[in-house]
Amino acid sequence: MKITCEKNSLLKGVNTVMKAVSSKTTMPILECILIDASSDEIKFTANDMELGIETKVEGTISEKGIVALEARLFSEIIRKLPESDVTITTDTNLSTLITCEKAKFSIMGRDGEDFSYLPFVEKDSCISISQFTLKELIRQTIFSIAQNESNKMMTGELFEINQDQLRVVSLDGHRISIRKIELKETYEEKKIIVPGKTLIEISKILNGGTEDLVDIYFTENHIMFEFDQTVVVSRLIEGNYFRVDQMLSNDYNTKVTINKKEFLDCIDRATLMVKEGDKKPIILNIANDVMELKITSQIGSMDEMIDITLEGNDIKIGFNPKFLIEALRVIDEETINIYYMNPKAPCFIRDEKETYIYLILPVNFIDAA
Amino acid sequence: MKITCEKNSLLKGVNTVMKAVSSKTTMPILECILIDASSDEIKFTANDMELGIETKVEGTISEKGIVALEARLFSEIIRKLPESDVTITTDTNLSTLITCEKAKFSIMGRDGEDFSYLPFVEKDSCISISQFTLKELIRQTIFSIAQNESNKMMTGELFEINQDQLRVVSLDGHRISIRKIELKETYEEKKIIVPGKTLIEISKILNGGTEDLVDIYFTENHIMFEFDQTVVVSRLIEGNYFRVDQMLSNDYNTKVTINKKEFLDCIDRATLMVKEGDKKPIILNIANDVMELKITSQIGSMDEMIDITLEGNDIKIGFNPKFLIEALRVIDEETINIYYMNPKAPCFIRDEKETYIYLILPVNFIDAA
Repeated sequence: MKITCEKNSLLKGVNTVMKAVSSKTTMPILECILIDASSDEIKFTANDMELGIETKVEGTISEKGIVALEARLFSEIIRKLPESDVTITTDTNLSTLITCEKAKFSIMGRDGEDFSYLPFVEKDSCISISQFTLKELIRQTIFSIAQNESNKMMTGELFEINQDQLRVVSLDGHRISIRKIELKETYEEKKIIVPGKTLIEISKILNGGTEDLVDIYFTENHIMFEFDQTVVVSRLIEGNYFRVDQMLSNDYNTKVTINKKEFLDCIDRATLMVKEGDKKPIILNIANDVMELKITSQIGSMDEMIDITLEGNDIKIGFNPKFLIEALRVIDEETINIYYMNPKAPCFIRDEKETYIYLILPVNFIDAA
Repeated sequence: MKITCEKNSLLKGVNTVMKAVSSKTTMPILECILIDASSDEIKFTANDMELGIETKVEGTISEKGIVALEARLFSEIIRKLPESDVTITTDTNLSTLITCEKAKFSIMGRDGEDFSYLPFVEKDSCISISQFTLKELIRQTIFSIAQNESNKMMTGELFEINQDQLRVVSLDGHRISIRKIELKETYEEKKIIVPGKTLIEISKILNGGTEDLVDIYFTENHIMFEFDQTVVVSRLIEGNYFRVDQMLSNDYNTKVTINKKEFLDCIDRATLMVKEGDKKPIILNIANDVMELKITSQIGSMDEMIDITLEGNDIKIGFNPKFLIEALRVIDEETINIYYMNPKAPCFIRDEKETYIYLILPVNFIDAA
């Protein structure tokens, strides 16, 4: 094999597929990037058996061939080369020469035949959304997947297509995050669970352009994203996702309208009074168009008032501040509505059209007052 | 005590003195910042008994007093307050109230009497240099102090004043870094050893302005830096520093003139072939106005040619690439001169006027060729 590419094209290709390189594995081939120049295109592939990424790299092929190179080393070499044309040559022993200007690296490659290509995904069911939208959907829900692997389903997100709506849901037993968007067309009903790791990695590769589209294909076991020069394929999580709709409700006794930034900053300050690992709740005391936040711990105490618009009953309710902070951080609106039922029922942060819903369970607290 | 300051003045003050807050200590008072508003000025002080920093903070004093506050908590509270006026009030029990707009924090302070003030430093011997110069002197030498505490003296830097010259020296047994500057006046001869930690921390506080001066005072056991609104006092390391001049030499058999960036980038690339912890040297083969760099390891091999101007004999010599990289990184000149004697003697990277000298010991290598 002999190919020549600009350093920056190589670097872009390497950075894209690196996300699917296995870091912990006993199979050295999974730590490799496959360079496939066996046809008329140069393609880089990495595949950790859960997530696979393939991307096209611009360049010229002087001699067709395939080689797998240790990903971290290859990436570091490319990164440190001068900004110029890079030639990669392999001989029949897979000994690989990387040259750029006067620099010459010689490393051993591995047989491309040992490499696991991306699984084949039938392109029948496809939806198209902008890279920006997909990136936002992920950002606004990913924080509430479970970190703990004990319930596999909670480590993924539900992608649910219903006619012309896509709903993305994540939950971890204490809270639920839901984002809903309208699609341009109407599709068959579909429910799949996408691993959180896949979404985190794809979010890093997406350029986030509002004009650039991602095509998303689903099969029984896989999801495939196609965009720019790149294909990402991931296994799905098996099973039937939790029945989210049963947990939602539009009833409320108290509706609070509040400036999001003020609320977020205030909770953020309050958490200074909580030692890490401590499960101290933050108490919201809502009455007379004022929300009072109060937290007391061994460290000290903090209290602050925020002007709000109140509709309905007064309420005093406690929350894990982390859950409030994480939801508030991803909401882009300046003013938000929060709906409360009673101090033991979840609160809902949602907009009128329910393009987002954040459900958060309250925490019991001992009312000293 | 009752004082009112802008949030940003407080934050600047806190950030300045934080560098001298002890992180590992069994004495809680050393983890505090002292707020001293007992006279007409507000002063923040931190002191870990090696290094002490005091800085003035702008603000108004409504009630004189002193209190010591847990540094990390106080700093976090200030950081998270809105950008507005902050009032700090303590009562006779040292219970401290920090208020800003509608936010109120209540934390416990400690008795300022328990706090160790900065040691008194007689202001007789003083030199004045720009913040820029001091920062550069540190940056260009600090990397070659010893990390290991086994030889205390190597963890510091020699500051040597001789007439109108200040020479700063650091060494770790494998290399020596020397920077020399001219002072505006002539001073008494003086040699002191300043702890590396002090220099690293002060370097972070200096704004680095070419017009802003630092006054440096020396006594038997302390060095004091005065600049802006801040005073930094540090203990000195006791002892007689190594006799550096005996190790220097202007003789050479080979003089190489080389583009610094090309040389640095090339060595940087070569290190990719060295596993961390491995002591593989990089071999420089200098002949016919070309320097060939070559490195071979289990990972692979790398070789590269750099055009040079050669004066004197050909030479083949090996170095620890880290030592070359660290010296080359801090040299600002585009083209540098390197002087070699033989493959067993140190090389010298220095300019004509010897404003900088970097001595690096070579490494033995087995010549396979």
